[in-house]
Amino acid sequence: MLLRNIAYIDENFLPQKGDVAVADGRIAAIGEHITGDYGEVIAGEGRLLLPGFINAHCHVPMTLLRGYGEGLPLQEWLNERIFPFEDRMTAEDTYWGALVGIAEMLASGVTSFSDMYSFCESVCEAAKLAGIKLNMSRGIVEFGDGGLYGSTRHAESERLIDAWNGACDGRIIAETAIHTEFTTNERVVREQAEYAKSRGVGVHVHLSETRREHVEGLQRRGVTVAKYFEDTGLFDSRVVAAHCTHVTEEDMKILQRHGVTAVHCPSSNLKLGSGIAPVPRMLELGVNVALGTDGASSNNNLNMLEELHLAALIHRGAAENPTLTPPEQMLRAATVSGAIAQGRADTGLIKVGYRADFAVLDTDKPHLTPTHDALSSVVFSAQASDVCMTVVDGRIVYKDGEVLLFNAREAMNKAAAAARRIA
Amino acid sequence: MLLRNIAYIDENFLPQKGDVAVADGRIAAIGEHITGDYGEVIAGEGRLLLPGFINAHCHVPMTLLRGYGEGLPLQEWLNERIFPFEDRMTAEDTYWGALVGIAEMLASGVTSFSDMYSFCESVCEAAKLAGIKLNMSRGIVEFGDGGLYGSTRHAESERLIDAWNGACDGRIIAETAIHTEFTTNERVVREQAEYAKSRGVGVHVHLSETRREHVEGLQRRGVTVAKYFEDTGLFDSRVVAAHCTHVTEEDMKILQRHGVTAVHCPSSNLKLGSGIAPVPRMLELGVNVALGTDGASSNNNLNMLEELHLAALIHRGAAENPTLTPPEQMLRAATVSGAIAQGRADTGLIKVGYRADFAVLDTDKPHLTPTHDALSSVVFSAQASDVCMTVVDGRIVYKDGEVLLFNAREAMNKAAAAARRIA
Repeated sequence: MLLRNIAYIDENFLPQKGDVAVADGRIAAIGEHITGDYGEVIAGEGRLLLPGFINAHCHVPMTLLRGYGEGLPLQEWLNERIFPFEDRMTAEDTYWGALVGIAEMLASGVTSFSDMYSFCESVCEAAKLAGIKLNMSRGIVEFGDGGLYGSTRHAESERLIDAWNGACDGRIIAETAIHTEFTTNERVVREQAEYAKSRGVGVHVHLSETRREHVEGLQRRGVTVAKYFEDTGLFDSRVVAAHCTHVTEEDMKILQRHGVTAVHCPSSNLKLGSGIAPVPRMLELGVNVALGTDGASSNNNLNMLEELHLAALIHRGAAENPTLTPPEQMLRAATVSGAIAQGRADTGLIKVGYRADFAVLDTDKPHLTPTHDALSSVVFSAQASDVCMTVVDGRIVYKDGEVLLFNAREAMNKAAAAARRIA
Repeated sequence: MLLRNIAYIDENFLPQKGDVAVADGRIAAIGEHITGDYGEVIAGEGRLLLPGFINAHCHVPMTLLRGYGEGLPLQEWLNERIFPFEDRMTAEDTYWGALVGIAEMLASGVTSFSDMYSFCESVCEAAKLAGIKLNMSRGIVEFGDGGLYGSTRHAESERLIDAWNGACDGRIIAETAIHTEFTTNERVVREQAEYAKSRGVGVHVHLSETRREHVEGLQRRGVTVAKYFEDTGLFDSRVVAAHCTHVTEEDMKILQRHGVTAVHCPSSNLKLGSGIAPVPRMLELGVNVALGTDGASSNNNLNMLEELHLAALIHRGAAENPTLTPPEQMLRAATVSGAIAQGRADTGLIKVGYRADFAVLDTDKPHLTPTHDALSSVVFSAQASDVCMTVVDGRIVYKDGEVLLFNAREAMNKAAAAARRIA
């Protein structure tokens, strides 16, 4: 594929214009008047090429729960609505929910996502079919021998890693997960910390999402949740910590020291009343901050352009400072910082030798005309529907309103039927 | 027009399904199996009908400044970038900027907007051509005899009202405006208060947008800006007060007492670091709260679905309370409360006898499938691009990606050329 004379965001996150050539799943050349046969030539006029978005925290099957139990206080919403619904979901329901969520992500320029859920094989199968990249983990909820779930979840996690880690030419990565501090005990956390190290896999965790979680964790462990996880050795692996809404200054330094990625999920944190994460301070301290949608049940969509927009806006408003979270910083969070979170080293930049994982926006729209600043256009003005092409490892997986590798209509029908049955 | 078997949001903001008939610019009938000849029959399958959005605070020609002077502190941004750019804008530039902004608004389901700017005739001409409703005002900036601008702006305001108030069968309303407390003196405010009462026109004003404006106003006037405006008699007319970011408890009671509409502009308030307006408290006190985009230079778009989404999210996050600003309340703010703000009594609801001003969403999309709650789907999941039809006074003004009454391509080209020339 050769994208001819196209506006693009370069590896330094500066807007440029030129030709971009793709070969063997990677960006093969960038420059003016590229010659050679790269297959299909795509005219770049009125288009903007940027790294694909990486949704660093999701529960994609929860697409089935979009709008379920709206407006309830958090514990009531979880205990009386969400958990009972999830208990009724089958592996097949999970598959169709995941596929609809993936359709939405591909349509909004997402090339990879990190997910934590049950029926992990269903999510992997959906990602395999759809052509999207996925870091999958089984959320471990366990209180030890005789506890709530026993150790079946560790067995599920291990089965996932055995079967799927590195699958589909590395498009799928499997890792382990600790659901939260309050849904596991210390023995379980230490075991998973050891397990992650011994297998060399990453860890996905929810961290200090709510004030209550922060306060009760401190009471229970005598230290903050981040310090507790550090002490158990969990942070000795590649870790993705979702939310980090209520972390202390010292917690942020712990994250930075261990290279833990904090995944900012603004829609979910706002919608559930969890709060506003200290993102500007984390960035200042050098924490790797990525962006995520969380599940559709607390969002209620999987639109990374919206997360980008929210992340760029809310910290300015909360601190009454318009110089915070500039567009470049937020675009990095939505792309290359997510790739780092996923352990995908050659991903997340428009750069020669990097994976050809990108989105193309159609910028020939009233809401993008005129513009004086390409980056702020992406961050503040663009809509998911401006994405006209999504490419993963050089393969076009979405184009002009259609996912190309599966039947979105069938998935929508199956998911709608499942949601009706379960509700 | 007869919309057959369509999902719609009824006058109580409950989701319903049925037939909706339009005749003579109004909603003529709602029910099951409506008979009679209403002209074109539109199939409602996979569609959702809701009142058109009313953008209650805009500076539509500022579309020309989208992304201009990004990331600067507020005063520097205004004084060194925005004001000099605006000084170079002509009446014709203003017209094309307005037309592109209107194209964006129609495409996102906006049926009416309130604007404050210069070259008001250009904005009125654009709205007249496009078929959108408009409340237009000349922002009066004046410090009295021998002051910064003299009294030319009052003359412009009067000319606007004489020529355009009630034009296009009432689609265009002209009113007066006080730009801000700090860009006028007390004599000017009292004169406009008298003038508005004598002419029976509305008043558009910026109110306590920033902390600085609030604090300095208090120092200058000895009372808050809201109290000062009340004392001058400005609030004895129908008043639209944009922002209200830094209002006190007593200010909110003043607004409520006088029926002043507070226009919440979340994108702009966040992006410029102005803060987060006390919207839940205003609603609790019975203030009429509408939503607005402000100009594209501080947003950077005119997408009311995004304002709706932000308004529903940020107050929950800031207060750590997920029960605040429920979807119904926010949808009211984006529609019927805006109609009240504009003095358009029979507008803003899907109700027999009301103006046929509405938007139709295409809900047959992955990001809206499945859903358990139609209202939360609109507020939290829908995108501007889901709008497939916008209707004003029964006339289709936007359909399936195209504005119908003007050449959007020409407007985009002219606006882009003007922006390049002026920048």
